[in-house]
Amino acid sequence: MTADIAPTELRAQIRSGKWTTPTSGAATGFLQANLVMLPRSLAFEFLLFCTRNPKPCPVLDVLAPGQTEPAIAPGADLTTDLPRYRLYRSGQLTDEVTDVRPFFTDDTVSFLLGCSFSFENAMLAAGLPVRNIAEDKNVSMYITNRTCRPAEPFEAPLVVTMRPMTPEQAIRAVQVTTRYHQTHGAPIHVGDPAELGIRDLNKPDFGDPVTIHPGEIPVFWACGVTSSLAVTAAKLDLVMTHAPGHMFVSDLRDEHMTIM
Amino acid sequence: MTADIAPTELRAQIRSGKWTTPTSGAATGFLQANLVMLPRSLAFEFLLFCTRNPKPCPVLDVLAPGQTEPAIAPGADLTTDLPRYRLYRSGQLTDEVTDVRPFFTDDTVSFLLGCSFSFENAMLAAGLPVRNIAEDKNVSMYITNRTCRPAEPFEAPLVVTMRPMTPEQAIRAVQVTTRYHQTHGAPIHVGDPAELGIRDLNKPDFGDPVTIHPGEIPVFWACGVTSSLAVTAAKLDLVMTHAPGHMFVSDLRDEHMTIM
Repeated sequence: MTADIAPTELRAQIRSGKWTTPTSGAATGFLQANLVMLPRSLAFEFLLFCTRNPKPCPVLDVLAPGQTEPAIAPGADLTTDLPRYRLYRSGQLTDEVTDVRPFFTDDTVSFLLGCSFSFENAMLAAGLPVRNIAEDKNVSMYITNRTCRPAEPFEAPLVVTMRPMTPEQAIRAVQVTTRYHQTHGAPIHVGDPAELGIRDLNKPDFGDPVTIHPGEIPVFWACGVTSSLAVTAAKLDLVMTHAPGHMFVSDLRDEHMTIM
Repeated sequence: MTADIAPTELRAQIRSGKWTTPTSGAATGFLQANLVMLPRSLAFEFLLFCTRNPKPCPVLDVLAPGQTEPAIAPGADLTTDLPRYRLYRSGQLTDEVTDVRPFFTDDTVSFLLGCSFSFENAMLAAGLPVRNIAEDKNVSMYITNRTCRPAEPFEAPLVVTMRPMTPEQAIRAVQVTTRYHQTHGAPIHVGDPAELGIRDLNKPDFGDPVTIHPGEIPVFWACGVTSSLAVTAAKLDLVMTHAPGHMFVSDLRDEHMTIM
């Protein structure tokens, strides 16, 4: 981890190829976002999918076709300012690249979706445990038995992140994260993993398992990976997203996206 | 005002032509919604306009092209279950009708947007004054000097409603309405009307003026009429909306749409 830097400086380093690693922990307090880029012909359907599933897919910004400069970061360029991108063709991951300019056209629409980094900072500030950060691991993610409201051709199961804590801490976590309604907001479940169809907390579908101490219960939040499953399941000719952990860093502070 | 009835019964009476008047005060506690119907070709742009302006245009539901049964009211039909509709052609109001089936096609997309009736009920329950209800008037609405974020071809000034109260009541009103983030949420301004470009509170652009008592200040909320200005300004061949006050009554309770 390097010393903290401003979002504009971080994006400049990414653009010049100097910064190539995940953005977790960088420019603390500034809103980071998931990126999805897809063709204009399916932009309505994808925006509809997000609108119908605001907990996993909170929309922070949508750009006009062919536009690359988001309102939440003037001067930024979404085709160059993320450290790493993934390209999916017909639903299959085919490439990881550091620059999507060769693939971006006047027809491409970019979506920026909220990310749990915002509320993790708030939980730390409130003295709550964030085990994945404490253990320097990727957060545990699970595919649940709950299905999102579809918007054809987009459909997906709900994916959740899990952070263990005591029941008393879970109550406080509900309060703290409720404010962050545009970055996943309050948990969607607390307690029994089986209720979500999760058989073994030690075997997450994505990310790493974390330690669960005696007296702790799992607390589950909706996860932005849901949107990745939706766009890959739709098997489009080409979809571009950020690579996991390599987010877009905006000029907005996390606080700008709170409900109160 | 008739005795209160259930949403399903109210919609049945509307559909049969028995109920033809505004829905204000009917089926208290159930979510009512603004309706906008427009062609598939501009559905993305309009959903984008709403996404970019969530305070005046909170999206409750969007239906697939040609669909008339919303998820928030199973069994309902949006083409028949509102007491009165308005038709705009090239931006001009041309008709008011009680049934839009003759104009609805497989290409028509329906949007349901949140309405301030939800938080007015909550304010009354909290003992706060809602002057327009107390004086049995339409709420005062004003076109402000603030512009919405456009999504071509949709653009509009922000329209606000105003309810007068004491400063102490205004503080409580902020708390009470914050919960209702999908039905306009917290106020956008309190105090000086000139800050919003409003020259005379006694001359609203829409609705009726209400009494402002000594010691009271105006409190302003974003208003769904903003979406009407946006769709008429776009001068589409045909747009259908509810007629003012003649809303769609859903099966969801107002409480379902609160943030906490």
